[in-house]
Amino acid sequence: MSLPLPALDPARARQALGAFQSALGAAHVYFDETDIAAYQDKFAVDDALHHPAGAVAPATVEEIQAVMRIAREHRIPLWPISRGKNLGYGGSAPVLAGSVILDLSRMKRIEYDEANGTVLLEPGAGFYDLYDFLQARGMKHWLSTPGNSWGSVVGNALDRGVGYTPYGENTSKICGMEVVLADGTLLRTGMGAMDGSPTWQLYRYGFGPAWDQLFVQSNFGVVTKMGLWLMPEPESLMGMDVEFDRPEDLGPLIDAIAPLRREGLLQQSPTIGNWLRAAAVLTTRDQWTKDPGALSDSVIQAIRDKYKVGWWGVSLRLYGRESVNKAAYAVLEQEMQRLRPMSLRPAEWKRGAPLEASGWTGTPVTFPMQNANWHGGRGGHLGFSPVLPQSGSAAMAQFKRTYARYREHGMDYQASFAFGERHLINVNAVLLNKDDEAMMRKVDPFLRQLIADARAQGYGEYRTHLDYMDLVAGTYDFNDHALLRLNERVKTALDPMGIIAPGKSGIRPAKAAEAAA
Amino acid sequence: MSLPLPALDPARARQALGAFQSALGAAHVYFDETDIAAYQDKFAVDDALHHPAGAVAPATVEEIQAVMRIAREHRIPLWPISRGKNLGYGGSAPVLAGSVILDLSRMKRIEYDEANGTVLLEPGAGFYDLYDFLQARGMKHWLSTPGNSWGSVVGNALDRGVGYTPYGENTSKICGMEVVLADGTLLRTGMGAMDGSPTWQLYRYGFGPAWDQLFVQSNFGVVTKMGLWLMPEPESLMGMDVEFDRPEDLGPLIDAIAPLRREGLLQQSPTIGNWLRAAAVLTTRDQWTKDPGALSDSVIQAIRDKYKVGWWGVSLRLYGRESVNKAAYAVLEQEMQRLRPMSLRPAEWKRGAPLEASGWTGTPVTFPMQNANWHGGRGGHLGFSPVLPQSGSAAMAQFKRTYARYREHGMDYQASFAFGERHLINVNAVLLNKDDEAMMRKVDPFLRQLIADARAQGYGEYRTHLDYMDLVAGTYDFNDHALLRLNERVKTALDPMGIIAPGKSGIRPAKAAEAAA
Repeated sequence: MSLPLPALDPARARQALGAFQSALGAAHVYFDETDIAAYQDKFAVDDALHHPAGAVAPATVEEIQAVMRIAREHRIPLWPISRGKNLGYGGSAPVLAGSVILDLSRMKRIEYDEANGTVLLEPGAGFYDLYDFLQARGMKHWLSTPGNSWGSVVGNALDRGVGYTPYGENTSKICGMEVVLADGTLLRTGMGAMDGSPTWQLYRYGFGPAWDQLFVQSNFGVVTKMGLWLMPEPESLMGMDVEFDRPEDLGPLIDAIAPLRREGLLQQSPTIGNWLRAAAVLTTRDQWTKDPGALSDSVIQAIRDKYKVGWWGVSLRLYGRESVNKAAYAVLEQEMQRLRPMSLRPAEWKRGAPLEASGWTGTPVTFPMQNANWHGGRGGHLGFSPVLPQSGSAAMAQFKRTYARYREHGMDYQASFAFGERHLINVNAVLLNKDDEAMMRKVDPFLRQLIADARAQGYGEYRTHLDYMDLVAGTYDFNDHALLRLNERVKTALDPMGIIAPGKSGIRPAKAAEAAA
Repeated sequence: MSLPLPALDPARARQALGAFQSALGAAHVYFDETDIAAYQDKFAVDDALHHPAGAVAPATVEEIQAVMRIAREHRIPLWPISRGKNLGYGGSAPVLAGSVILDLSRMKRIEYDEANGTVLLEPGAGFYDLYDFLQARGMKHWLSTPGNSWGSVVGNALDRGVGYTPYGENTSKICGMEVVLADGTLLRTGMGAMDGSPTWQLYRYGFGPAWDQLFVQSNFGVVTKMGLWLMPEPESLMGMDVEFDRPEDLGPLIDAIAPLRREGLLQQSPTIGNWLRAAAVLTTRDQWTKDPGALSDSVIQAIRDKYKVGWWGVSLRLYGRESVNKAAYAVLEQEMQRLRPMSLRPAEWKRGAPLEASGWTGTPVTFPMQNANWHGGRGGHLGFSPVLPQSGSAAMAQFKRTYARYREHGMDYQASFAFGERHLINVNAVLLNKDDEAMMRKVDPFLRQLIADARAQGYGEYRTHLDYMDLVAGTYDFNDHALLRLNERVKTALDPMGIIAPGKSGIRPAKAAEAAA
């Protein structure tokens, strides 16, 4: 990929560095080799493709505007991160090597409207920060946390991460933003566009076109504040963890859950995970086999026997009044028993009892990160996440096709099917060991194959690693990539030099887009 | 307001007319006086401010592109309408007099995905069209209809109209669009950006920034297809119609409903209406008094006595499994009885029974339109609709302030407070009689006063009449109207001549915006 911006000569670079230091103080400008290493993508196949030039960490909107001014003057691309934990999709690293990381993790303010159940968050506020904040105030509202919760709430919502409560995808609960554009303009979206409005975090659309989702997965601006709705603590939580024995149980399970989800009996968006999703956080591969290549059926069976996990498992949860949950539970249980599961374990909680630390209660957790140890060595994972219809037969076909590819490429299959209201996201983790050169050579061709397989079915990814942003943007090809061209026109109008995150989601200003093509 | 586009000289106008006729056939180009009258705003204080030059009615995307080409060539502003029933906010008329109406009402196609409960609609498909379509197929899915349902489903969603089922605001259930830009580019949003994707109507965001809400209440493109989610027919419907005797019952009622709405026990978004909202469709003013000015308390009481309506009334409905609804109903009833209502009438329906024709069942209705006859003469109404917090005290203060203004200006107060998930929209209808000159002189200053009163509280309108689009856009004033300036930058990039709906939501391309300022 060619640089959309001219490389800096050393004299220019020194000038820029000096300007950053004057604006932020030397303590918040990181250009040493060890600093730079801290912002690399630890999971990338070839992290050198995405080495940043350094990082700057402003603490206020004014400092962000100053950074933007310096970046424009010296034509330096900035890569904004909230806390940089976008693991499997690029971490804190930029698409374009040589970019300067705009690290917003020092901006951690939380404003809480307890009566309305909303927060106004700065990008540096992590799930743990927000959880601690709410705990200290009696936990009247719950979060929706992702599997690995050490990241930023804003960052999660801006990359459309998924959670497991009825408030599921945080991106769907965004209400109002404050944004700095590449020219330094500060704006607020929705009702926040009215100075002093008390409804900024209450009504999402405002007057005229609604912008929040234009700043999600994009590079049109730097989000400095984000409104988010929080789920009121329910009176009761009821549900069940259900395991299924056979690969082919996936289809009927999806066809049983989908109508319950659509009719609203089930308001949470459950995730069906395979045995390795459960087991990779409990054990390591070398406990079971030294053979390279995909695991054999007998090894899979042995692992499943030991941990009593199905080929597929799913957790279903109901949130609300106990009397209402009981009525809904009866329906849910009947539907699941009809499928003859391997096991069905009820789960129940009432207000006042201690809370299980899990995604179902919106508690931040990090143990799913254990799967990075599956292969040993410097472990990690890359994500492959196409969007599917909520159809058992479509999901079964996708599973069979993908599982065959995993075995063909000698990879261990870890997958889940995450429900939205009308779609499934088939999140596949490619578990890897960066110290295993033979394995690492396979990863990139394998991911390209999976993306091509999905495109052949009309399936596109909802999110992808830095390495594949152009490739995936290219699969969105209706009318010669008309939507991408629209994004490029807006990018050109707002940020003609491509200062903010060039290449994010495949979007660059017009000239840079020509150069990259 | 100055014209953003040069007025056409007669020779140029004839050329353009000929070009429209060649492109669409003479039968679909309407420039006669009677044609033009059909597109006027029948409810406007001064409809001449918004007289269109004529109308064209394409039937395909290709014809829309041809119209756009001709409009660009001759610099003619187009005002797209779906079915043009945006009553109270401008009907089918343009902001800018002399615009040509782009009438899409001939484009009525409906594609239905029964398994997933979605439709793909052209703008001309009305609520009645879609209802008939679903009726013919066994009514497995319900609509969310507005009070006056003769308009377009797409048009309703694009102007953020409200409905009364759990699918409430149709704008929130939009999933994927097809759009023609001013330069003729055809694009699809969300997953539709991938050619042949089966998930266009299933996942809203796609890859990268999500555009659907940018084409809502905007003039960035012409929506030619819109995906919409439909509510699965519930097994049961339960609820209650509750009346309250005193004006001051509003506050406690809002404070009782709001937490039920936020916790999700109540998933429908109810509307609290005042006595006139109920009575103006049942009787006319001259049956009760000949006095001008606001109605006296004794007349109000007499009307309420006759029709047994409260000062305020609200309908609450639960949708889903009967067993679940029964449990939720018990909670709801307890909460309402605690408020000592004037009356509480239970409502119940089970699958298979005949459906009540009402907004609660998503059946199209037109009887609320009867309120146009309240004053006699050529009746109508204009809307004033600020967004409020879900707070009893805020709503009471807004009610008192507004009611005092209605009496001060001698107007009859018709108001409702429509719940969203975390906001209220205080929809006020200003009922009028165009044959009453004295009354008509009062309307414009009155509406300007209401807008100013709301702004003083930090409340902005979610939608407004053509006459007030600039005024209301002006109230969204954070950082010197930074959001409006962003809209103008995008408008300038996509439609520099201002071909599509100049002035919609106060948005014009840069030069026209300067001229209008």
